[in-house]
Amino acid sequence: MAHVVVIGGGFAGINAARKLGKSGKVAVTIIDQRNHHLFQPLLYQVAMAGLDPSDIAVPIRALMRPYRRVRTLLGRASSIDLENRIVGYDGGTLPFDYLIIACGASHSYFGKDEWERFAPGLKNLGQATEIRRRVLVAFEQAERTNDLAEQDHWMTFVIVGGGPTGVELAGSIAELARHALAKDFRTIDSTHARVILVQSGDSILKQFSQDQADYATKALEDLGVEVVLGNRVTDINAGGVVIGDQTINAGTVLWAAGVQANPIGALLGVPLDKAGRVIVGKDLSIPEHSNVFVAGDLAHVEGEKGKPLPGLAPVAMQAGRYVADLILTEVGEREANVKANQPAAVQNRKPFHYRDKGQMATIGRRRAIMQSGSIKKNGLIAWFAWLTIHIYFLNGFRNRLFVFLKWCWAYATFSKGARLIVQKEWRQRESDKLSPFADGIETYEDPISNDPAS
Amino acid sequence: MAHVVVIGGGFAGINAARKLGKSGKVAVTIIDQRNHHLFQPLLYQVAMAGLDPSDIAVPIRALMRPYRRVRTLLGRASSIDLENRIVGYDGGTLPFDYLIIACGASHSYFGKDEWERFAPGLKNLGQATEIRRRVLVAFEQAERTNDLAEQDHWMTFVIVGGGPTGVELAGSIAELARHALAKDFRTIDSTHARVILVQSGDSILKQFSQDQADYATKALEDLGVEVVLGNRVTDINAGGVVIGDQTINAGTVLWAAGVQANPIGALLGVPLDKAGRVIVGKDLSIPEHSNVFVAGDLAHVEGEKGKPLPGLAPVAMQAGRYVADLILTEVGEREANVKANQPAAVQNRKPFHYRDKGQMATIGRRRAIMQSGSIKKNGLIAWFAWLTIHIYFLNGFRNRLFVFLKWCWAYATFSKGARLIVQKEWRQRESDKLSPFADGIETYEDPISNDPAS
Repeated sequence: MAHVVVIGGGFAGINAARKLGKSGKVAVTIIDQRNHHLFQPLLYQVAMAGLDPSDIAVPIRALMRPYRRVRTLLGRASSIDLENRIVGYDGGTLPFDYLIIACGASHSYFGKDEWERFAPGLKNLGQATEIRRRVLVAFEQAERTNDLAEQDHWMTFVIVGGGPTGVELAGSIAELARHALAKDFRTIDSTHARVILVQSGDSILKQFSQDQADYATKALEDLGVEVVLGNRVTDINAGGVVIGDQTINAGTVLWAAGVQANPIGALLGVPLDKAGRVIVGKDLSIPEHSNVFVAGDLAHVEGEKGKPLPGLAPVAMQAGRYVADLILTEVGEREANVKANQPAAVQNRKPFHYRDKGQMATIGRRRAIMQSGSIKKNGLIAWFAWLTIHIYFLNGFRNRLFVFLKWCWAYATFSKGARLIVQKEWRQRESDKLSPFADGIETYEDPISNDPAS
Repeated sequence: MAHVVVIGGGFAGINAARKLGKSGKVAVTIIDQRNHHLFQPLLYQVAMAGLDPSDIAVPIRALMRPYRRVRTLLGRASSIDLENRIVGYDGGTLPFDYLIIACGASHSYFGKDEWERFAPGLKNLGQATEIRRRVLVAFEQAERTNDLAEQDHWMTFVIVGGGPTGVELAGSIAELARHALAKDFRTIDSTHARVILVQSGDSILKQFSQDQADYATKALEDLGVEVVLGNRVTDINAGGVVIGDQTINAGTVLWAAGVQANPIGALLGVPLDKAGRVIVGKDLSIPEHSNVFVAGDLAHVEGEKGKPLPGLAPVAMQAGRYVADLILTEVGEREANVKANQPAAVQNRKPFHYRDKGQMATIGRRRAIMQSGSIKKNGLIAWFAWLTIHIYFLNGFRNRLFVFLKWCWAYATFSKGARLIVQKEWRQRESDKLSPFADGIETYEDPISNDPAS
């Protein structure tokens, strides 16, 4: 029986493994360095204390439970031997007949990796809880002091990057400050928090049409977010960010800009694009190794007009299913040929075609945008569509039920249910002492840090 | 207006601050090193992946929202000046008229603090997620290997301490292995996991009557737990635990034994008991400073027959409310005296009296014990009572609703909803390499460790 190794349990990997597992015709091993599949489109809600990690994450092992020929491994792939068809990982080796590499991407700091500790990105649960910690601690720091300049520092939040994640983070922080926290402080007035969204281009949400982007900008401004366009961030440091010749003193900076593919792509020795993505053929296989596929954010797939397909969940899901189908077809044909005593036929692979069903982004309560082909909607109807579609695509009925209930609760009460700072005990952390005001405070590195930036 | 400082947001501190806040007659500052009040009786369910941290924790700030004269601070009290009535913390100083110290307790390793890294205790959310990580990783490690001895190592779980927490942990791990994980592995059979509960005395749950303890022992054994009585643990190390002259090779050891009061008690310069608790008077004040009170697990309060009151949530809650009442009465009398131009009367303080409403412990599905005075129940009826009472005492309707729903879901499906290992990426951690089998594996210290033991 052919053995398919899938590296990565994101949208591409899960969809491929599930389809292969359902068929029962191949043995599958899926390996990931985390034990859970993450529904990334809702990750910003974990960062903003609206949802719990377990609401949007499911153990890969639990997803694969029905498929007896799928084995799940917690491990870190470290080498790929294309000639001998062996993947090495921290617990041993895995021989393969087919390999699907779907390890996704993380943030790119455009060569300024030193910015990461000042401005964490949002790609996994550890980062989400770290962002949650920083945002909540910023308000706590402001409440502790009577120095107005220090209060301003802690109550200023800068989000770099005007894509959907940046917009969602900016809108959520503004709502957190204006609603959920409004009556909780005595020294500060949390509704006076400044939230600044910085975008280098001349519009946010550039993958949407201009009128939709204008609607989103207006909606953000209604929430009190300052949208700063046409300016590139030139420095991020302990005091805040530098934009052009302007310095913004900010206690919290979040990064929602560039994308950098997982470095595993470089192990393959095939051409990569500028973002480190593997340039694959129309069948998503790599050059000279038609049994090795790359899918999801790690793949550079040429779409219409020569532009690569975007790093979106639907692309990854469709790519994962496409590769699984392709492998099952080939395995089936090979078996038929063996039975008929015929030589293996050269297969003509049908190219991958991405069916674009549209895109959407949410700004806040009752404010969202969506467009699909020529259909464009915004406001309440787009917001309901956003809610419905995100609930629908969550894995597992339990998560759907609980996310739905938590959203109803939050909508009715304006509250956030998960405002927890989980660390062993309150100690000023390195990221907390970044404030120019914190010089005199005794600081420790917290032993139970969730800081992905350290 | 008199200023009351409350150190600690556990059951005692929250109940005192709430009562004081409601009156509006005093200004209150409540300071805690964590931003949340934790419902400790359900902490083991977070450790066992049944509940999320936010289900059983509420921001102290949110609990204090209705009381405009209560200020909440995230901070760490570091000094107490009894003469000048000043508490020092990492963000400044707090002058007080009355002080309530309610910082609780952590685990005692009986002088063997080096055991903590091998056998974490369960007192806060960081420890709960660390225990969850260790238990889930143990099964993952077993699944990764074909070496039977190594599989046995990872599939053996030892819990030290036969009180309610130890019993709850042992029962939960057994149910996790036998139900929730039963169909998820391909190399191992999780139902063959060994769960061993070690108790130095000749019976578990010694605060219950013997027949109730016998029922619990039988119920644990029905779940497959091995109950080892009358043996003291003499060593805990990388390979497992040593009990008398027997060595048990175990991948996971959890500590649910001794109690050690918070070291803040030692700052007071008053007599402490063996466990470090502050020996307080019948009015819960300390000697020579009738305006300074200690409540909750940090206090040694003499109960009936000269035995100290147990470290239970009801004791702490009642103590917190008692101290608040006492302060409010004195403040009221003083004001009346000032108005009437009379000298302050010497108050006769009514002593604290703990109303014992009984106690309960749960072993697993449909198995619990309870006793209140001469009433004893076990089995299904005690289990329902346990569920009802724990839901009732949770803070906030939202948490009650979600815990109730999650319990219904878990009961119906035998599943655990929160089986997440949250760390930046899969890397063998120090605690994972403790296995004598792991020598050859490359190891790193994880930068986002949740390890409270390190």
